[in-house]
Amino acid sequence: MILSKKLRTLDVAGSPLYLGPEVLVELASQLETVFKGKQNIFIIADKNTAQHCLPILLEQVPLLNRAYQIIVKPGEENKTIQTCEVIWNQLAVMGANRYSLIINLGGGVVSDLGGFAASTFHRGMAYINIPTTLMAMIDAGIGGKTGVDLASLKNLVGLFSHPAGVFVWPGFLKTLPHRYMLSGYAEMMKHAAIADVDFWKKLLKMPMALTKTWDDQIYHAALIKCKIVNGDPMETGSRRLLNFGHTIGHAFETYSLRHDESPLSHGEAVAMGMICEAYISYRMVDFPHPQRDELIKNILLNFDHYNIDTSAIDELVEITIYDKKNQNGNVMLTLVKEIGKAIDGQQCETALIRESLFRYTDFRRHIVR
Amino acid sequence: MILSKKLRTLDVAGSPLYLGPEVLVELASQLETVFKGKQNIFIIADKNTAQHCLPILLEQVPLLNRAYQIIVKPGEENKTIQTCEVIWNQLAVMGANRYSLIINLGGGVVSDLGGFAASTFHRGMAYINIPTTLMAMIDAGIGGKTGVDLASLKNLVGLFSHPAGVFVWPGFLKTLPHRYMLSGYAEMMKHAAIADVDFWKKLLKMPMALTKTWDDQIYHAALIKCKIVNGDPMETGSRRLLNFGHTIGHAFETYSLRHDESPLSHGEAVAMGMICEAYISYRMVDFPHPQRDELIKNILLNFDHYNIDTSAIDELVEITIYDKKNQNGNVMLTLVKEIGKAIDGQQCETALIRESLFRYTDFRRHIVR
Repeated sequence: MILSKKLRTLDVAGSPLYLGPEVLVELASQLETVFKGKQNIFIIADKNTAQHCLPILLEQVPLLNRAYQIIVKPGEENKTIQTCEVIWNQLAVMGANRYSLIINLGGGVVSDLGGFAASTFHRGMAYINIPTTLMAMIDAGIGGKTGVDLASLKNLVGLFSHPAGVFVWPGFLKTLPHRYMLSGYAEMMKHAAIADVDFWKKLLKMPMALTKTWDDQIYHAALIKCKIVNGDPMETGSRRLLNFGHTIGHAFETYSLRHDESPLSHGEAVAMGMICEAYISYRMVDFPHPQRDELIKNILLNFDHYNIDTSAIDELVEITIYDKKNQNGNVMLTLVKEIGKAIDGQQCETALIRESLFRYTDFRRHIVR
Repeated sequence: MILSKKLRTLDVAGSPLYLGPEVLVELASQLETVFKGKQNIFIIADKNTAQHCLPILLEQVPLLNRAYQIIVKPGEENKTIQTCEVIWNQLAVMGANRYSLIINLGGGVVSDLGGFAASTFHRGMAYINIPTTLMAMIDAGIGGKTGVDLASLKNLVGLFSHPAGVFVWPGFLKTLPHRYMLSGYAEMMKHAAIADVDFWKKLLKMPMALTKTWDDQIYHAALIKCKIVNGDPMETGSRRLLNFGHTIGHAFETYSLRHDESPLSHGEAVAMGMICEAYISYRMVDFPHPQRDELIKNILLNFDHYNIDTSAIDELVEITIYDKKNQNGNVMLTLVKEIGKAIDGQQCETALIRESLFRYTDFRRHIVR
């Protein structure tokens, strides 16, 4: 359903998503109607969003000046059960209970963490997501996946738990550093690659650097995500289509968290994962090689190639073996048959994952040649 | 629904409960039918149930000899997020995923912990409860409440998440020390006090020491619990009836965990809580004083009075203020209007809680006199 360009709405598994320039006005209004019964409100932000986004939110929604603030350390490396404990303890000390409301103001780390903390505090309190990154606006903040990493295994602990609302105000993107924009752009490309060839072509025509207003792209990408989530909210089947690039992407992400001082962002890791999984798609499900090369080329136009030594491949393969999407000990991938058409549940030999990683180390040159 | 005395079944919010001497036969059968698709099975036990109950289970259900075992430290003091981390890590190392099955073999601590660990690992895997204590058979193992304590605040973190089945085999009670039987007996008395005056009278006539087979009492108490849970699975209203004795009981339990080398069991704490809340019932909702005295007397016939100094009262009152059942900063109690008839959502002044605790310190003498 579209209300107007100023305020568009989507339904995500029964939970509303609002998008557009008027979203914060809508939020202010809902806090005095839909959420009027909430006894107290807690805003969870990280240090970056507390600095750059929270002042804007408090100015636009003055009622929130009386909310409690819980500020956590930013970054995937802090998406841990220990940070959750900090949140739970602060909620307890500040008198939160199951009739309170949590507002997650931030990117995917904040909504994953805050959603999990909210859904488990006192056996579950309501929460709202206000995504501030492109990635959270079109992916992480939508669909009810919450959780934390454990011993650097991504999202090992978590829940499906839908927010009481997602409020997407594209204005926050003005606060976002380029590298974070890029991270979201990877998921946007992925959404297009698995489900919408026309959107893919639009993205090719309008590269990131030339995009001035993001509202339409966000709406389009969020719509793809919503449709897929609504077809399979608990990820028992078709929702796995969203995992294209994510199995090997998570391996890159975990590997980088372990080894790099400045680790890959989620989107950067997924972009590299898509390169490998596009190659596997070509080998396993006849993804045409011109499309494969177009996809890889477009990724490498936007993203720096993450250099790994071939000696890293053993560890990367090892990480995919622990991926939670696996079944019967087999690595299960989502692959693309053609741009805009994906297929999930493809059992992949570790030998082929290894092969794709070997090819990956060489891909930039390969494509350019 | 009753199948036969050998195998009785109940429905708990859509999840089956089996009870009787034939239950382990039923479990063995279901592992080869209902749960055949599960890729691997993990048994969570504590050191006590691993020693006393697991050998019996493995003998009766030989298929489980190939299950992985995760053994945790026993006792409420280990019902923590740290123990959960141990479980999550072991699950990850042993290759569990969302298609695995967890079997919780133990009392309320094991089912609370294991149920929470299962429901959050890989965003949720199926679990079964095999309660081995009277308390778990009639209360903790039934109804989908899972969770852990945080900084000694009881069940601060948790979830409503229903098991795929509860298998109650009363034979395990033979392994149970007297003090644990007593703990379950407190919940049994509470179930009767809030919902079933005839069952209360039966319990009065047949004291714990004289009871030889527990099957009927367990069935009766579990039935009360099921009916109340089914009327309000998420505890938005009438399920709170089960909380009689539990607000001040939790305060005693938390206090004792903080201060005592050998802390009160949950049931012992609830028994003491019922004494105080029976007094408050008399003061607030006209609980007749002869019934009040009968209730308190019957508790003190079965349970040792937990001696506290009046100087402890401030801390106990303070703990009730953080109780997660509170609303709008007010302590909310379930009280009894008469034996077999309870009323929830009673807002109680802290002054009256304080008064009940002062009277409590003096109650044994008061009743005997």
